[in-house]
Amino acid sequence: MKAVLITIGDEILSGNTVDTNSNYIAAQLKNIGIAVQQIFTISDDVETIKTALKSAFEIGTLVITTGGLGPTKDDKTKIAFAEFFEDELKLDEETFEHLRKLMIKRKREHLLEINQNQAVVLSKAQIFQNENGTAPCQMICKDGKIAICLPGVPYEVKPLIQNKIIPYLKEHFALQYIVSRIISVVDFPESLLSMRIENWELALPENISLSYLPIGNRVKLRLTGVGDDFQIIENQLDKEVEKLRPFIEEKVISWNGNEIQEILKEILTKKNLTISTAESCTGGEIARLITSVSGSSKYFQGGIVPYNYHQKIKILGVSAETISEKTVVSQEVAQEMTLGCQKLFGTDISVSTTGVSGPNSDEFNNEIGVVFYSIRVRDFEKTNRLFLPHLERNDFANFVSQRVLQDLVEILVKEIR
Amino acid sequence: MKAVLITIGDEILSGNTVDTNSNYIAAQLKNIGIAVQQIFTISDDVETIKTALKSAFEIGTLVITTGGLGPTKDDKTKIAFAEFFEDELKLDEETFEHLRKLMIKRKREHLLEINQNQAVVLSKAQIFQNENGTAPCQMICKDGKIAICLPGVPYEVKPLIQNKIIPYLKEHFALQYIVSRIISVVDFPESLLSMRIENWELALPENISLSYLPIGNRVKLRLTGVGDDFQIIENQLDKEVEKLRPFIEEKVISWNGNEIQEILKEILTKKNLTISTAESCTGGEIARLITSVSGSSKYFQGGIVPYNYHQKIKILGVSAETISEKTVVSQEVAQEMTLGCQKLFGTDISVSTTGVSGPNSDEFNNEIGVVFYSIRVRDFEKTNRLFLPHLERNDFANFVSQRVLQDLVEILVKEIR
Repeated sequence: MKAVLITIGDEILSGNTVDTNSNYIAAQLKNIGIAVQQIFTISDDVETIKTALKSAFEIGTLVITTGGLGPTKDDKTKIAFAEFFEDELKLDEETFEHLRKLMIKRKREHLLEINQNQAVVLSKAQIFQNENGTAPCQMICKDGKIAICLPGVPYEVKPLIQNKIIPYLKEHFALQYIVSRIISVVDFPESLLSMRIENWELALPENISLSYLPIGNRVKLRLTGVGDDFQIIENQLDKEVEKLRPFIEEKVISWNGNEIQEILKEILTKKNLTISTAESCTGGEIARLITSVSGSSKYFQGGIVPYNYHQKIKILGVSAETISEKTVVSQEVAQEMTLGCQKLFGTDISVSTTGVSGPNSDEFNNEIGVVFYSIRVRDFEKTNRLFLPHLERNDFANFVSQRVLQDLVEILVKEIR
Repeated sequence: MKAVLITIGDEILSGNTVDTNSNYIAAQLKNIGIAVQQIFTISDDVETIKTALKSAFEIGTLVITTGGLGPTKDDKTKIAFAEFFEDELKLDEETFEHLRKLMIKRKREHLLEINQNQAVVLSKAQIFQNENGTAPCQMICKDGKIAICLPGVPYEVKPLIQNKIIPYLKEHFALQYIVSRIISVVDFPESLLSMRIENWELALPENISLSYLPIGNRVKLRLTGVGDDFQIIENQLDKEVEKLRPFIEEKVISWNGNEIQEILKEILTKKNLTISTAESCTGGEIARLITSVSGSSKYFQGGIVPYNYHQKIKILGVSAETISEKTVVSQEVAQEMTLGCQKLFGTDISVSTTGVSGPNSDEFNNEIGVVFYSIRVRDFEKTNRLFLPHLERNDFANFVSQRVLQDLVEILVKEIR
């Protein structure tokens, strides 16, 4: 089954909001073998929505829209659906009752009347009630077309997709399986890598495709198989990975894992190691990445963001002399930070960052874009310097955080027994 | 001028990568008066790219693509452009020279040959060299259509857009201005708000539009004006904001600001206050939000992520008795955390979070979704409890972090003189 997603909302077209719903929905659909062919992001306008529905059904049989279901005047999705499917809108008693209960639960009964419009739905639609918001999810099937409209708020979308839409689609449609393996290769430029594995790639079976996703100095190789039998695809993928192994083995830090923090979890859990962080220029991003993984409290003891250099001295015990001699952005300070951090939190591993992310320099006039990071695993220590003047503030923090965790994983795979 | 963005890449359709380029490009174009009408996200396939180009030029005169320019086999953008514009691809000496210098700088001269394909460009294109990667940006103009293809890596896209494309478009095309004001309203449900300001909204001039963007318990009202004269739009917006003021004044925490961390910066700078953070269940997200703003080192002293409760006792001085009596997820612990944090970092303000983000409970068997947060401004203290069982781990951290900063701003606006 082929799907098209339609994201409705001027806030996305104007660059005010990043669309994260599509990403989530695409990943969930992929798990049950539905491939998203295209995503349209359009404005909140009845004619535009109808045109998009028409184009979308030329590409796929399943169309899922998000957004444009709020109670305010700028939300037009329902009207467009009614016109497109030649249906009418009517007040649904069951949905109204659901809405009433939600309002009572939220102590907002006085708002029921003005939210009543949220219980007005397509007369031929199947309704999936929304537990976390006032706009229900509606599904309409006609002439082999399936259209589903969802609200736009991400935390309303996720449970609707996960608990209602995915189970429904799984039950009602015979689907193909899509299975992936993501292999993480480091220190191997994409162009060189593609040359090295060219013959293997050209010999891949027709139902298996390869793509390259560079991130920092890591390249993720994603191998995707499609077919009717889950086990057959699994076996095919295993076989191809085995064929690939000798070409790239020494550069691989993970044979299956998407996010670096998930790969880290696997290794730390296996080796039974704990970790803490001391972040200056990354401002908490490394701690946030590590704790974004469920179960991280087993190995993550804590982190500190000693943003001001006085805090580096006071809390981490970095020497004031080192700072005045070498400045706060130096190899020596990065090393003293991991040492102090390891001690403060009592962990096997600690990582630290200190740098100037710009747009302004620091009080020591260090060059914008310079960063030192240190990784300490028990007595093993490695410091590195990066120079990233082209990255704006937030990309800088993301890039450095990814790189630190990636280097840590590489050390744990290659250096630590 | 109307624009359409085309995002090319299977990694986005499969849900592996969130598309942040479109958001950045749309915001930058808006600043110079170019409105993005639609965004297509499509797969890396020559025919699909050509079809998308055709559809896009039915909507706008400027089309910008990202992605699909890498050296590997899965990148097809250039070929599609050549076929669509009936142009041919040829090796460009200047681009090759640029590539050669880049490779030397990166100590990767041995890779020049296999990256040579990156210097093969459309014969009729204008080239904007890429300082941060191997794929150049190409622009082709034909029959009143303007198409620009960019690489897909965000930190290559941003400088190309900011330093080359935007100045070029500004210089060569007479553009309309698009100006916005974002007003942040708290504790005022969208439906009730829309009713309250309905008459004002209906009387808005034709060139001014309004949209509602709910985020946590804040609603951002975005007022957007379009026109040929910047100053006239500015005056119109000022006038409309003044008319709106009496209806919502008591619920407004900011009259112009998009992100809560930017609003916070303005207030902290004006009031000359410093801040620190103690985060458990938000895992560093609040520190990361605060430090994402340039100049935050002026008021942010530091943060701590005492993930394990022993660290709360050891570093923040939370009492072990309080933890054993009330458990670690309690009003009392949240309060002791801000007290300890304020002392540790010596700041005017401190905020803390402690909660259970799931999917598993903590060692005290607290209910999943419960969170307490405390906000301390000198001697003023406020604690709040939220219950968010429906949010998955990362949404939970985001939601709580937004809410904490939002409440803090509200307190600073209303309570602290």
